[in-house]
Amino acid sequence: MEAKRLLRLLFVILGTVLLLFLTSIIFPYGNQPEAQLDCATYSPWCTSKNRIQHKTIIKKKPPPPIPTRHHSSDVPRHPLDPLTVQEFNKIRAVLSAHPLFKSSPYALHSVVLQEPPKPLVLAWRKGDPLPPRKASVVARVDGDSHVLTVDIDAGEVTQSQRDKEAASLSGYPTLTIEDMTSATLAPLSNAGFNRTIAERGIDVADLACLPISTGWFGKSEESRRLIKVQCYSTKGTANFYMRPIEGLTVLVDLDTKEVLDVSDNGRDIPIPAAANTDYRLSALNEKQVKRIVNPISLEQPEGPSFTVEDDHTVKWANWEFHLKPDPRAGVIVSRAVVRDPGTGETRSVMYKGFASELFVPYMDPTDAWYFKTYMDAGEYGFGLQSMPLDPLNDCPRNAHYMDAVFPAADGTPYVRSNMVCVFESYAGDIAWRHSECPITGMEVGLSGILMVKGSPFVNMNQVNEQENLYGTLLSENVIGVIHDHYVTFHLDMDVDGSDNSFVKVNLQREHDSPDNAPRRSYLKAVRNVAKTENDAQVKLKLYDPSEFHVINPSKKTRVGNPVGYKVVPGGTAASLLDLDDPPQKRGAFTNNQIWVSPYNETEQWAGGLFVYQSQGEDTLAVWSERDRAIENKDIVVWYTLGFHHIPCQEDFPIMPTVSSSFDLKPVNFFENNPILRMPPNVDKDLPTCKAAASA
Amino acid sequence: MEAKRLLRLLFVILGTVLLLFLTSIIFPYGNQPEAQLDCATYSPWCTSKNRIQHKTIIKKKPPPPIPTRHHSSDVPRHPLDPLTVQEFNKIRAVLSAHPLFKSSPYALHSVVLQEPPKPLVLAWRKGDPLPPRKASVVARVDGDSHVLTVDIDAGEVTQSQRDKEAASLSGYPTLTIEDMTSATLAPLSNAGFNRTIAERGIDVADLACLPISTGWFGKSEESRRLIKVQCYSTKGTANFYMRPIEGLTVLVDLDTKEVLDVSDNGRDIPIPAAANTDYRLSALNEKQVKRIVNPISLEQPEGPSFTVEDDHTVKWANWEFHLKPDPRAGVIVSRAVVRDPGTGETRSVMYKGFASELFVPYMDPTDAWYFKTYMDAGEYGFGLQSMPLDPLNDCPRNAHYMDAVFPAADGTPYVRSNMVCVFESYAGDIAWRHSECPITGMEVGLSGILMVKGSPFVNMNQVNEQENLYGTLLSENVIGVIHDHYVTFHLDMDVDGSDNSFVKVNLQREHDSPDNAPRRSYLKAVRNVAKTENDAQVKLKLYDPSEFHVINPSKKTRVGNPVGYKVVPGGTAASLLDLDDPPQKRGAFTNNQIWVSPYNETEQWAGGLFVYQSQGEDTLAVWSERDRAIENKDIVVWYTLGFHHIPCQEDFPIMPTVSSSFDLKPVNFFENNPILRMPPNVDKDLPTCKAAASA
Repeated sequence: MEAKRLLRLLFVILGTVLLLFLTSIIFPYGNQPEAQLDCATYSPWCTSKNRIQHKTIIKKKPPPPIPTRHHSSDVPRHPLDPLTVQEFNKIRAVLSAHPLFKSSPYALHSVVLQEPPKPLVLAWRKGDPLPPRKASVVARVDGDSHVLTVDIDAGEVTQSQRDKEAASLSGYPTLTIEDMTSATLAPLSNAGFNRTIAERGIDVADLACLPISTGWFGKSEESRRLIKVQCYSTKGTANFYMRPIEGLTVLVDLDTKEVLDVSDNGRDIPIPAAANTDYRLSALNEKQVKRIVNPISLEQPEGPSFTVEDDHTVKWANWEFHLKPDPRAGVIVSRAVVRDPGTGETRSVMYKGFASELFVPYMDPTDAWYFKTYMDAGEYGFGLQSMPLDPLNDCPRNAHYMDAVFPAADGTPYVRSNMVCVFESYAGDIAWRHSECPITGMEVGLSGILMVKGSPFVNMNQVNEQENLYGTLLSENVIGVIHDHYVTFHLDMDVDGSDNSFVKVNLQREHDSPDNAPRRSYLKAVRNVAKTENDAQVKLKLYDPSEFHVINPSKKTRVGNPVGYKVVPGGTAASLLDLDDPPQKRGAFTNNQIWVSPYNETEQWAGGLFVYQSQGEDTLAVWSERDRAIENKDIVVWYTLGFHHIPCQEDFPIMPTVSSSFDLKPVNFFENNPILRMPPNVDKDLPTCKAAASA
Repeated sequence: MEAKRLLRLLFVILGTVLLLFLTSIIFPYGNQPEAQLDCATYSPWCTSKNRIQHKTIIKKKPPPPIPTRHHSSDVPRHPLDPLTVQEFNKIRAVLSAHPLFKSSPYALHSVVLQEPPKPLVLAWRKGDPLPPRKASVVARVDGDSHVLTVDIDAGEVTQSQRDKEAASLSGYPTLTIEDMTSATLAPLSNAGFNRTIAERGIDVADLACLPISTGWFGKSEESRRLIKVQCYSTKGTANFYMRPIEGLTVLVDLDTKEVLDVSDNGRDIPIPAAANTDYRLSALNEKQVKRIVNPISLEQPEGPSFTVEDDHTVKWANWEFHLKPDPRAGVIVSRAVVRDPGTGETRSVMYKGFASELFVPYMDPTDAWYFKTYMDAGEYGFGLQSMPLDPLNDCPRNAHYMDAVFPAADGTPYVRSNMVCVFESYAGDIAWRHSECPITGMEVGLSGILMVKGSPFVNMNQVNEQENLYGTLLSENVIGVIHDHYVTFHLDMDVDGSDNSFVKVNLQREHDSPDNAPRRSYLKAVRNVAKTENDAQVKLKLYDPSEFHVINPSKKTRVGNPVGYKVVPGGTAASLLDLDDPPQKRGAFTNNQIWVSPYNETEQWAGGLFVYQSQGEDTLAVWSERDRAIENKDIVVWYTLGFHHIPCQEDFPIMPTVSSSFDLKPVNFFENNPILRMPPNVDKDLPTCKAAASA
């Protein structure tokens, strides 16, 4: 009985939460003059969304104000802390004085901390002075991309040879929010676009348009920065995503804002009625809304077991790590260490972990769909697209919220409130957010609104067998197109130090029976240490299974096993597109589910630094071809979590959460079960709760 | 924002919990004279465990009494309700008067409700009289197995032709608890056994022995009922499992209790010291126990959202199903129906779901290990091996507990208190129990104590590369042997009625580009309706993926998709043993991850009715060879969840929970997202909690 009590636990996870999907309204931080932004400027869908809100705002109460925190006086306290408001202002001043930015209009596509060299970060202890603060800047000036470094204290701009090489690669930097906004407005000034809208009987005031990355498919996408804009009718619904103006695609030059082409192939496809798709509580009558389950809540009356020190250092149970929001990756976990319950010693597990890139190819080769092969992190910015988390609905009580400070295209910092939250749970999950746990696992939850396709069909009985719908008829005139999701994680493991090896522990069927036992076959674990990158390119095999260990070959347990952590794959779908299909060349980092590379500070983004319209020459797959030595080196594991999605009617008009995850688990890292010494739960430990109504 | 709130939900699951592993003390129900059992009689490990408890009882407080419920006056109220105390007593009276049982000693290996024919159950409505109550009885008399039916009301015993055929198959019925107890005592009366124990320096008073199913490996296991007994030293630890007396195996005849052979190959292998492996709270000093996280609790101050009516009918949210404990399967879920939120109509989803068989082959071909290829449900009884759930530690507050009434070998009913609990959570999981959710998923959590092997090695530096350890050195002289886990679920789906079809929706790579779009490849969903059983034998393929739908071909959604539910595989490991290896022939139900068979009331147990020492001629694999028609028929889906386990030091001395699950999800079953109309959480809905200490 005791064993049960002691172990009955509590794989409590620390979750950090951010939004995955592109359905966001961005709430700018309104209290600080230098951070004030208006919606129309900083949200890609703001123009159309605002109109909808104007129409409906009368019916509903305003949302509760988001608790705001002041960030004007923030100072960095850890070498990995993100840039502060003051630092952004300094950088802006330094850049605007630089010759490159003096003569021409410019746009800053990325301004982030240039993390100090790893040895400096590892050597740093709390109380030490910080290493010099630097910023990495990606800018567009006069049609060219530039990569620069700003030494903040010195007020200097430098540009290394590597910076110059990076800027010369194919592809363009992550879109700015200004890019997205201006793209969605561009069609309105085009006569051909306005004509077809009028001919389809759509009032321009009902338009909502989305900026869609074009990918790269050959010469036509070369040498200029392009985007495709597709529109929806908001008439009669807040869920305009269900009312596509099918087949109408506007090609826009992002630098000149010029409309280059209006492709109009869907005139025979009606705009779906999308009846009853308004998901908002305010739009439902009382009878429609039913509470069929009583309130249930994770309660911790003694407060959470974690603390967040100096804004970014999270301490929970035996764990400590640095956590920060990032405009591209969403969140970054760094310096994850654990105190060994046996020895009391603090031991390193992971130097840095984050979602490096996404790849979401839709499976429809027709004109208005073939190019939809999103790489959300590098094209749109995972963090840039996030929306503020809603206390109680997105994160439980006792959650800690973290704001982000991001720069606008002119370098002005603004605050994203409540971008990340940290909380404990029983390994549970809130229902439709991206939640990730750096140590025991990373979990990806997908929800949001499907991108749907208009169709002439209202019932499957109209569809003959030869017809290819490219998806499922979800409602009258609405098709949910089949697509894949891949999330590639960068896991810079430092298991008890930086020099590690990657070991495939393969289960092989054996037939020898040493003493002629009647048993004919059994599985044997065979260890293969990867010498070079090629050895560590892993395609998962169901019928030739392996475990994947990151070990420290120099450190052994008392009985002589090398200490390690293992990657336990979760969503195991693999991309099945042709390797030479342009989207797959760009998304070649999904060609294997696991890769291992030697640590290289320039190899952070699996799809390359410049993903937008890239041709795939700067991906993890290309780096790995060098076949560098990885045995007993500082190594990075790249794991891709994938799933196929064939939409079904239950995904309409909003998807319930689908989640998938992988685990990082200790494997002979501890001498024995590290949670053995946890005391059992007894009644007196648990809270006393009353129903809120009666309280 | 609203969408987020409405969907931020609550895939609240209803969990039923039971123990998976063989580490149980059985607490008999002590209040009713007719149910009184003593530990020595009804627990296989009781003899040795009692001794341990005597030694340590002084140090610890007695466990809190388990809340007892009276069952003497229980009456069945649903056609599927399990047999009651009164019915067991009636059955016992009827059987003891029957000629078969008059002349010889007998043992009842199974007495369970013979479920009424499916049409009767489907036609039954609350308030109707119950169909005739019958019991299925498996008995051993004079070395023969018998299958009988008892008509309880009529007081008659019948034996159909099918009963006679069943009894003629190879293999023996599930062990009785009396079998296990007598087997572990048998070696003590053997001189050879006592001699080797003495020579190894072990005090007989320190012995703890386990009864281990022998499997079937050829002629030597034929024609008699055998078991192998292996022993451990309890000296100095409560966790005697870590102290195997390696290589000592006693072969016992279960019917005569005769010791047939003592195999003694491990004299050179020391008994592991197993220092610091006592996991009990009472054995730890205060300094060792640390609460490193604050209490966290799922609270529902308005009570749970489910009710349990008539002891077995669970109603939660839109769901209703019948739930009962079962000595072999653990729990059985029946008649799962859901009220459609769109129409208010009650719709059938599943007629019956349960864990039909387990298969746990260990991967060591040597003398003392080769035969360890457990089939827990059919050999030991999943329900028989369960232990009472500990409120708060095993199940949260507001859990509903369900007792089981099982018969002893002489037919006397006894009560297992708190065998099953039902609770709501945020799709979370308690840490080391088997938890399963009938509708949105089935989850299997494994914990418990590893069965370990003694070894001469204390450090890996003594092991040369050619040496095969068959596992991992976990501690000095202790090896964790590699093994697999498979759980095969019987899922009698009735999607909107009994006649269903099984559809593989295969994602195929296509290269046609209808309008010469630059995209070269994409995935297309191709539907294949299985005509016969062969079409539905599925080996999962990572690089040729499919979805697996059970549809009702006669019922379509408004837009014309057939309504369905899909099986979403979780743990996907496949058995890699040779198909003609005796354990794999017996466990051939794991040859595919999915099978579909036409409904047949005799095909309930994937490994056959008589699994113990069976030769594999009555498994799902054999039934499926008949290749019966399954299109638009009443069909049963069999899904096998599997994982490989290479032990690591963190599994020592007790494993943290490893869990795996699969999902049953609606696929075009509802017209749209069925949880769209759930209201958001607001502060006033949530409980007000105080720390217990301050309350």
